[in-house]
Amino acid sequence: MAAPWKRSLVGRIDELVIDSPALSGNPLGDPAERPLWVYLPPGYDDEPDRRYPSVYVIQGYTGHVQMWWNRSPFRSPYPEAVDELFASSAHPPCIVVFVDAWTSYGGSQYVDSAGTGRYHTYLCEDVVPFVDARYRTIADPAHRGIQGKSSGGFGAMITPMLRPDLFGALATHAGDTLYELCYLSDFGPAARYLRSWDGSIEAWWDDFRRRVPFTNKADATLLGLYGVAACFSPDDAGRPVLPFDPRTGRPLPEVWDRWLRWDPVRMVPQHAEALRGLRGIWVDAGRSDEYFLDLGAEAFVGELAAIGVTDVRFELFDATHAAIEYRYPLSLAFLAERLSS
Amino acid sequence: MAAPWKRSLVGRIDELVIDSPALSGNPLGDPAERPLWVYLPPGYDDEPDRRYPSVYVIQGYTGHVQMWWNRSPFRSPYPEAVDELFASSAHPPCIVVFVDAWTSYGGSQYVDSAGTGRYHTYLCEDVVPFVDARYRTIADPAHRGIQGKSSGGFGAMITPMLRPDLFGALATHAGDTLYELCYLSDFGPAARYLRSWDGSIEAWWDDFRRRVPFTNKADATLLGLYGVAACFSPDDAGRPVLPFDPRTGRPLPEVWDRWLRWDPVRMVPQHAEALRGLRGIWVDAGRSDEYFLDLGAEAFVGELAAIGVTDVRFELFDATHAAIEYRYPLSLAFLAERLSS
Amino acid sequence: MAAPWKRSLVGRIDELVIDSPALSGNPLGDPAERPLWVYLPPGYDDEPDRRYPSVYVIQGYTGHVQMWWNRSPFRSPYPEAVDELFASSAHPPCIVVFVDAWTSYGGSQYVDSAGTGRYHTYLCEDVVPFVDARYRTIADPAHRGIQGKSSGGFGAMITPMLRPDLFGALATHAGDTLYELCYLSDFGPAARYLRSWDGSIEAWWDDFRRRVPFTNKADATLLGLYGVAACFSPDDAGRPVLPFDPRTGRPLPEVWDRWLRWDPVRMVPQHAEALRGLRGIWVDAGRSDEYFLDLGAEAFVGELAAIGVTDVRFELFDATHAAIEYRYPLSLAFLAERLSS
Amino acid sequence: MAAPWKRSLVGRIDELVIDSPALSGNPLGDPAERPLWVYLPPGYDDEPDRRYPSVYVIQGYTGHVQMWWNRSPFRSPYPEAVDELFASSAHPPCIVVFVDAWTSYGGSQYVDSAGTGRYHTYLCEDVVPFVDARYRTIADPAHRGIQGKSSGGFGAMITPMLRPDLFGALATHAGDTLYELCYLSDFGPAARYLRSWDGSIEAWWDDFRRRVPFTNKADATLLGLYGVAACFSPDDAGRPVLPFDPRTGRPLPEVWDRWLRWDPVRMVPQHAEALRGLRGIWVDAGRSDEYFLDLGAEAFVGELAAIGVTDVRFELFDATHAAIEYRYPLSLAFLAERLSS
Repeated sequence: MAAPWKRSLVGRIDELVIDSPALSGNPLGDPAERPLWVYLPPGYDDEPDRRYPSVYVIQGYTGHVQMWWNRSPFRSPYPEAVDELFASSAHPPCIVVFVDAWTSYGGSQYVDSAGTGRYHTYLCEDVVPFVDARYRTIADPAHRGIQGKSSGGFGAMITPMLRPDLFGALATHAGDTLYELCYLSDFGPAARYLRSWDGSIEAWWDDFRRRVPFTNKADATLLGLYGVAACFSPDDAGRPVLPFDPRTGRPLPEVWDRWLRWDPVRMVPQHAEALRGLRGIWVDAGRSDEYFLDLGAEAFVGELAAIGVTDVRFELFDATHAAIEYRYPLSLAFLAERLSS
Repeated sequence: MAAPWKRSLVGRIDELVIDSPALSGNPLGDPAERPLWVYLPPGYDDEPDRRYPSVYVIQGYTGHVQMWWNRSPFRSPYPEAVDELFASSAHPPCIVVFVDAWTSYGGSQYVDSAGTGRYHTYLCEDVVPFVDARYRTIADPAHRGIQGKSSGGFGAMITPMLRPDLFGALATHAGDTLYELCYLSDFGPAARYLRSWDGSIEAWWDDFRRRVPFTNKADATLLGLYGVAACFSPDDAGRPVLPFDPRTGRPLPEVWDRWLRWDPVRMVPQHAEALRGLRGIWVDAGRSDEYFLDLGAEAFVGELAAIGVTDVRFELFDATHAAIEYRYPLSLAFLAERLSS
Repeated sequence: MAAPWKRSLVGRIDELVIDSPALSGNPLGDPAERPLWVYLPPGYDDEPDRRYPSVYVIQGYTGHVQMWWNRSPFRSPYPEAVDELFASSAHPPCIVVFVDAWTSYGGSQYVDSAGTGRYHTYLCEDVVPFVDARYRTIADPAHRGIQGKSSGGFGAMITPMLRPDLFGALATHAGDTLYELCYLSDFGPAARYLRSWDGSIEAWWDDFRRRVPFTNKADATLLGLYGVAACFSPDDAGRPVLPFDPRTGRPLPEVWDRWLRWDPVRMVPQHAEALRGLRGIWVDAGRSDEYFLDLGAEAFVGELAAIGVTDVRFELFDATHAAIEYRYPLSLAFLAERLSS
Repeated sequence: MAAPWKRSLVGRIDELVIDSPALSGNPLGDPAERPLWVYLPPGYDDEPDRRYPSVYVIQGYTGHVQMWWNRSPFRSPYPEAVDELFASSAHPPCIVVFVDAWTSYGGSQYVDSAGTGRYHTYLCEDVVPFVDARYRTIADPAHRGIQGKSSGGFGAMITPMLRPDLFGALATHAGDTLYELCYLSDFGPAARYLRSWDGSIEAWWDDFRRRVPFTNKADATLLGLYGVAACFSPDDAGRPVLPFDPRTGRPLPEVWDRWLRWDPVRMVPQHAEALRGLRGIWVDAGRSDEYFLDLGAEAFVGELAAIGVTDVRFELFDATHAAIEYRYPLSLAFLAERLSS
C-alpha cells in the first residue's frame, strides 16, 4: 500500500486569487476576492502553442476550494487523482479549474440571488474569462465542461442550460434534483428540530453561529434548508424564507414554487435546445443516496430522453451520498474525451 | 403484576354479524357480511329504559375487528380497557361499537371508492342504523362519537366532517393527514423497492399474494401506498393508480391531487360548519411518529383554529407510530364526558 | 385473498387448565394454575385406538399462551396453520401442546430458578405427564418433540439436552445462544438507559410497573436483561442480579459465568450423548436477527458437528427477529415426519 | 462569519522528517522516515532562553499527520485552533508535536507489535528525544503531556502508564477501552460481513486493496478489527489473527485475552504507581459514541478512583464518535495549565 502523504504532481496547480466584480458588495459581506486553482496537465509548459479543453469543478454544499486537499484514508484527494489521470497518456489532457463559491451560509447553488450574491454571474462572467485570459484554453463551449457533486452537481446541470454559449458538456454526481424527494423529505425533520428554537430558523442560526457548529444533530438539516432558501427564496431584504411552515413542515406553495422553478427535472423542457447541443452528459448517483438523488438522476435522464437527448452516460452505483468523491476522476476522463474531439 | 390472561368483563360484548347492502357486490369481492362487536357497559341490562351515548371505533390500516383481542405483553387489549373504564363509575357509560372495515388490500380509509367499495356508506348508512335499531343508544349526533388510530384516525377526522348529522365528536390518534409528509415521504423508498419488480406495483402485488406476506422489507410500504391508491385514486376499472412515477418516485400531479382532496388539513376549511358544531375533538400523536403525524396533528389543529374551533384537546406524547393503542381509553373517557352532557 | 377472520378448525383445540405442583409457591406469586392448550388433529376422535406423536410448543420472551391467537395481517395464527398442516394428509398427524410459561418478569427461560420458579420441572414433570395421561400420545421420547422461537428456541435446545428421556427431537427458531453476541451486545445500551434511573434496575422496574409499560424506549432491553437475570443469576433471595456493572455495562465475570453456563453452544459438549440420540434437529434464524441469533444458530450447528451430530436441518433466511412465526409450521412438518417414523 | 480559508498563524509550524531507527525494517515495509510537525507558540523566537512544556498529539485510526489540515465547514483545523489558543495570553504556551503513526493497515495503536512495527518505541525513543534535541522543551515528565482521540486516546492512556518517566499528563477523547463493548460489539457484524468473502478476512483485505476502498459497507468495520489484530494479536509471522471465529463471531478466548491485556481499564491496577504520579488527566467522550466509549471513559475513571486517583477532569458530552475534534483544544488548554505549574 502506497504511502499516504502528499506527493508531488506531474502537472502543476497554480493557486490564484480572482477579484470578482460580480461578488463585490454581495449581501453577506463575503469576500469578493476568491481563491481559484488551475491545474495544468503535464507538458503544458513544454508546448507553448498548444491549447487545451477546460473543465470547471464546483463543490457540494459547505465546500470551499481548500477542502480539495482534505485527505481520506486510503484514497487520493481529487487534485492528485486529476494528476494521475493525465500523467498517463490514456486521456486527452485538460486544464481543470477549481472554483470557490463558498458563502457564509455554506454555499451558493451557483445562482444569482439576493440572499447570497451573484454566483452564477461570478462563475460565467468573471471566472471563465479570467481563466481564458491567462491560460491556453480552447475558449469555446465545445471544449469547455463543468462537473460537480451534490450542490455542485446541481450547478453542473443548470449552468450549461443557462449558458450553452459557455459550457458544452457536464457531469453531475448525485446532483440536487427532484425536489419533492431531495428537499421536501427534510421538511418534517426540520420542523421537529425547530421545536427547540420555538419554530424560528433565525433563532437557530443565531445559536449556530455562537456555539461550536454541528454539535447539535439539527445543524446539518437546518443549515442546508436555510442556505438553499437564501439562494432560491430570499425576501426583498435578502433574508432566507423557508418553503414550509416551521411549526408543521407543511409546504408553503408560493415559496415552494420558487424552489421548484430551480429544479433541474423541471428546467429541462425549457432548455431543450441548450441541452440538445451538449457534447457530453454524465449522470450518476449512489443507489442509497440519503436525498434520493439516484431517483433524481433517473428522473433527469428521463426528462432528457423526453426531449430527445439520449447520448447520456448514466450509472447508479452502490453508495450513499457520502464518500463518493472517487467518481470525479471517472467523469473527468469522460469529459476529457468528449471535449477533445 | 396481574395475570396476563383474558379476564371476564363487567360489561359485555355482543359479537354480531351485519349484512351490509353498501358492501354488497364490492369490487374486491370481499364479504358483505361483517363482524360487528358491541360493548355494553355494566348496568345496561339492569336499566332497561336507560339510553346511552355511543362511540364507534375504527381501526388502522390492515386491521380487522378480531385484532382487538390481540394481546401485548403487560398491556390490556382495548376491549378489556374499555370495560375497566366503565367498571368504575368515574366516567359516564357508553356503548362502544367495534366496526370492521377490512379489505383485500388491508383497509378502506372509510371512504366510498370504486377501488375497494362503499365503506363510508357502510359505516354511516348500514352500521349506525343497525346499532341504533338494536341497542338503546341516544340516536343523535350530540351523543354519537367516533375514534380511531392511524387510518382509523383519518376516518375519525373525515366522517364527522362529511356527516355532522351523525357524529358529534371525534378522537384521532396519529391520524393520516398532511400528506406531503405522511405519504409523499414514502414515494422515494417505494420507487427504490419497485426496482425489484421492474417498476410494476402489480407485479409486486402478485408476488405478495403468492408468498408469505411481509417477508420482503418492501411489503409494508408498498401495501400501504397500493391500498390507499385503491381508496383515493382508482382508475375507471377500479384498479389502484399510484400517485407517483414508479421508476422515480416523482409525484404525478393529476393523481396526487386526488389524494390531496382527501387530506384532512385541506378538508377543514370546506367543512367549517360541520366542525364548528362538534361537541368534542381529541387530537394526539407520538412526537416521533414515522409518518410525521405529530406534525400532521399540529397542522390539523392549526386549521381548526383558523376556522375558530379552539376547544380541542391536543397532545403530543413521547412515542412512535407503534404501540400507542393505550391512547384509546384516554380519548374514550374524554368522548364519554362530552357525549353525555 | 381469503377473509381474515377466525375460521373453524378441521381438528380441534382443547383449552385446559393444569394445576402445577412445581409452580406452587413460586417466588413471584404467579399462578400455579396455567392454561394448557392441546391441539388434536383431524380424525383423532374417529380412531379411538390410534396413538400420536406429540410436539410441545413454547413461546418467546413475554409470551403467554393466549397470544397464539394474535392475528397479523394477511397471515394465519399458528393454531390455524397447525390445522391447515394436518388438514391435508401430506404430513403425519401429531398432537400439538401449547404450553404457558409466562412470569411476572415476562418469561422463564424454561429453567428452574430461585428467581422465577421451577419452569423446567413444570414442563417436564407436570405438563408432559398431564398430557400423556389425557391424550393418546405415544409416550416415548422417540415420538415426542419440542419447538420454540427466541426464548422458546432456547428452551427447545436445552430441554432435550437435559431430558433426553422425554424429548427426542427439537426445532429452534432464532433461539437464544452465543451469549457474547445476543446478550452482551445489550449491556452498553442498557447501561446508557439506566442513567435515567441512577443506575438502578430496581428503580426502573418500579417505574415500569407503575406507568404504561413500553412507553419508554428503554423498556424492552431492560425487561429482557432483568428477566433473564431472574432466570440465570438470582441472588439467594431470588432477586435478579445483572451480569454487568449498571454504570458502565462492564461484564461482571462471576455473574456472567452463571449466564454462560446456560449458553446452548457451551452446553452441547456436555450433553453430547443426549444430542446424538435425537431423531430430528431443526435450526433456523433470520440473517438480520437483531440479536445475531443467525450467528448463534451457525455456532450451535458447528458445536453439534463437533460432537458428530450432522443430521441437522439448518437454514438461514432473509428476516430479522420479528414476524418469523411463519417458520413454526415448517419445522412442525419436519418434526411430524421425524417423530412418526 | 469569518472566511473559511487557511489563515496565517501567529506562532509557526515546522514540518520536519524523522528517520526512525525503531521503524526501520518494520514488518509492513512502511516508511521509517516520517513527517513530524512541531508547533512553536508565539514568542518562541523572541525569547531564546525560555523553555516550554510540550504536548504530543496522536491520531485516531486511519489518521496520518497531514490530515490535521483537513478542513470541516465552519470549523478550524486543529493546528489553527492550537494557534488561536496560544495567540491570546490566556494559556501558558506549549510546544505541540504532531506525530505520525500511520501504517498500511491504517494505524498502530502506538504499541510495539510484530504485526505492524515498534510504534511505542518510535514514539518514546525516537520522537521524544528528537524533539527535545531540537527545541527548547522542558525535557521532564512533569512538563510533557500526550493527547489523542479514539485510537489516539488509547495511546494517550497507555503511553504514560508504560513510560511515566516520559509523560506526566494525558488527555483522552473517546479513547478505546472497555473492549467487551467497544470491540466485541463488532464481532457479530464482522462475521456477517465476512460471509461475502467466505469467512476469510485475508480475502477481504486482498479485495479491499484492489478496488476503491470504503465502497463496501463492510470496509470500516473489517479494517478496524484486522488492523487492531495486527497490533494486539499477530501470529509468529506477524499476520493478524482475529479474536473471533470469522464464521460465527464467537470470541476465541486465547486470542481475545491478548486484546484484553491491552485494555486500559484492565491495565490501570497494574500501573497504579505511574498513574498516581500524573499531574493531569482529562477524560471525555460523547454520550452516544458508537463504540460505547462514553461507558469506557466512565469505567476508566472508575478504575482510576479505585487506585486513589480522583483528580481527573471528566466529562461526557452530547455527541457520537464523529466530529469531536473540537475537543482537542479544550484538553490542550488543560494540559498547558497542568504542565506549566
